[in-house]
Amino acid sequence: MSVVDQLTQLLVVLVAAKVGAELMTRVRQPAVIGELIAGMIIGVGGLGWVTTQGGDLLEVLAEIGVIILLYEVGLEIQLADMARLGRSATLVAFIGVATPFALGVAAVQILQIGGGTTETAIFIGAAMTATSVGITARVFSDLGRMGSDEAKTVIGAAVIDDILGLVILAVVAAGLAGDSASLSDFFWLVARVIVFLVATVSIGRVVMPAILRLLDRLRMAGSFVIGVLVLALTLGIAAERVAGLDPIVGAFVAGLIIGRGHDIGRIQSELRPISHFFVPIFFLAVGARVDVSVLLRPTVIGAGLLITVVAVLGKLVAGLGAERGMQRIVVGVGMVPRGEVGLIFAALGASQLSDVVTSEDIAIIVLMVILTTLTPPFVLTRLVRRSDDVSPVADDTIS
Amino acid sequence: MSVVDQLTQLLVVLVAAKVGAELMTRVRQPAVIGELIAGMIIGVGGLGWVTTQGGDLLEVLAEIGVIILLYEVGLEIQLADMARLGRSATLVAFIGVATPFALGVAAVQILQIGGGTTETAIFIGAAMTATSVGITARVFSDLGRMGSDEAKTVIGAAVIDDILGLVILAVVAAGLAGDSASLSDFFWLVARVIVFLVATVSIGRVVMPAILRLLDRLRMAGSFVIGVLVLALTLGIAAERVAGLDPIVGAFVAGLIIGRGHDIGRIQSELRPISHFFVPIFFLAVGARVDVSVLLRPTVIGAGLLITVVAVLGKLVAGLGAERGMQRIVVGVGMVPRGEVGLIFAALGASQLSDVVTSEDIAIIVLMVILTTLTPPFVLTRLVRRSDDVSPVADDTIS
Repeated sequence: MSVVDQLTQLLVVLVAAKVGAELMTRVRQPAVIGELIAGMIIGVGGLGWVTTQGGDLLEVLAEIGVIILLYEVGLEIQLADMARLGRSATLVAFIGVATPFALGVAAVQILQIGGGTTETAIFIGAAMTATSVGITARVFSDLGRMGSDEAKTVIGAAVIDDILGLVILAVVAAGLAGDSASLSDFFWLVARVIVFLVATVSIGRVVMPAILRLLDRLRMAGSFVIGVLVLALTLGIAAERVAGLDPIVGAFVAGLIIGRGHDIGRIQSELRPISHFFVPIFFLAVGARVDVSVLLRPTVIGAGLLITVVAVLGKLVAGLGAERGMQRIVVGVGMVPRGEVGLIFAALGASQLSDVVTSEDIAIIVLMVILTTLTPPFVLTRLVRRSDDVSPVADDTIS
Repeated sequence: MSVVDQLTQLLVVLVAAKVGAELMTRVRQPAVIGELIAGMIIGVGGLGWVTTQGGDLLEVLAEIGVIILLYEVGLEIQLADMARLGRSATLVAFIGVATPFALGVAAVQILQIGGGTTETAIFIGAAMTATSVGITARVFSDLGRMGSDEAKTVIGAAVIDDILGLVILAVVAAGLAGDSASLSDFFWLVARVIVFLVATVSIGRVVMPAILRLLDRLRMAGSFVIGVLVLALTLGIAAERVAGLDPIVGAFVAGLIIGRGHDIGRIQSELRPISHFFVPIFFLAVGARVDVSVLLRPTVIGAGLLITVVAVLGKLVAGLGAERGMQRIVVGVGMVPRGEVGLIFAALGASQLSDVVTSEDIAIIVLMVILTTLTPPFVLTRLVRRSDDVSPVADDTIS
């Protein structure tokens, strides 16, 4: 494809992503769903205006987008804060990972959803463990409830979920992509993930302050922001080349390390316009890979709805991990949106695991992500308003 | 090439460009030369770490870079200001375009430099018409002479040169790329350029304020900066598809139109991090395309030095266009640096005119650009200091 053809495709992608995001924002829905649907409309299964094949421009720009996205998530997380969020958030997070995974694997195998194989079951189950920090945080903030115990617990749990989810993602992706899947391979993989995380975080803690001081001292305009981006790319590529993990794991760790104490405000604000360029391309590319005709098959819609119900139940149960005195149903509903994290799973499945994951499996996950992302805001709004009317004291609704 | 391989190449490019730029900045030289040389070192003729072939990632990112670069140049130009700069700047600009072009074409044909054909002569001559606004402005500003009549004249003339240069570039590129080059084709081309410029500027003046008001009203974070970038891409692609011109012409016009009165401060500051990412990739890609072994051939070095002398003389003569009372030698020397504008010519030749422009021609232009860009700052510094010592009143040194 000529350079001008590629630029034209990029133009179409940028405009479609921004129009989708803007329309969703106007109806108070997450922009990410607008970008995803825009991708489904202009992608291979829709109008066919863009193609995403291994190694072509959009694929690479989308990969840079998801690397920046996970880097920003990592930057937001203050490990020191995590400790203070306490037992409640941790318990909610672990239940919120374990239950959807177990229920998901069981549902796929019992109901013979998608491919119905063990690999499909593990992949769909893993995708169901995700929780979107961003979407949950925005809903609570829209409701003016950001300071509530429920909100703090859900956001803390969602952050822990991000970390657990990335580890699961790394293990699942590397495990399913390999030919054999023996138990020793599995332990070797888990060991590799843990060694990579521990090694990069420990070395990073020592080296990163010096690197950031160096970047601060560079005289060239723009050296700082590009330097900061280079750190994410470096750790991302290292994750792939050294540990066989997805680059996003490395980018996330880079963010985590820098998030430890350095003035991240400057990094975030300088990185933002670059992120506005690349990140929507990622979500659009996920949508563009969805075969809409597959998504609209009755069997896929049926399976998607079933998986959605299981995905919602799995996270509602996580609400039980919240301390007494909180509205456990609010915590549970707050954990439901899969958002961008669920889409990262779908993307990874589509691009790297095409041997074991079918286009039906991807469509089912995308349907589940859309439904779990769009409904909780409505439910949460009604729950919080009702509790405001009925009783000023938070009550315990599930247990 | 796999996505991770492409990311690795991007990482190498970003690091090399920033290291080159930083080193040049430390010795008070233009960063763009550092990025160019970094490209020569890691490119095909050097270490071979990066490849730039038609349509691959770096090529597209570099094209986005040069589009943003010309867009920013266009944004800087206030057409209203241009009128006030007056006769002197206009005269300097026209002499500064006509003389190097005439001398360049003559020199190439008489001395049988490079290919020695008429096409080579026109291309090298056209590349010699460039003047770098950015580098000249920085030198005067470093000397604390930004407010002097000489500086204002040179910068005004350099801006007019940008516009003339783009028209010449459009005509030369379209003319040389075509098979035939009859006189009627030439007039048709010039007509096309003029119609495109007049049409886009007239329509843009009417439509652009409404578009910018719309972008201002978008609620999504990042919609504004991406919208502004989309305008540049749209006009760039339109220039190519509708008028057969290089995309940079459209991007430049987009900048010119927006530069008319709208608050460009916000546009520039939001665009800056994106520009820091893409623009250095362009300069590095220019360097990466230079075959260093060709550049080091004695014949090429000889031809490059000759062309450099002609290029310097052509611009010194332009100083004669300055009004009496100014230091005409300072104006002339200020017009010498070709900088990024010369490199845009070289890039265009390498990528679009490979039939008529040889790697020797490119190497000669790159050598000329490097030498004309690196020497004037030293000369100007000495000239300005000497005039400060000898006489506090500006004298007329050439005529």
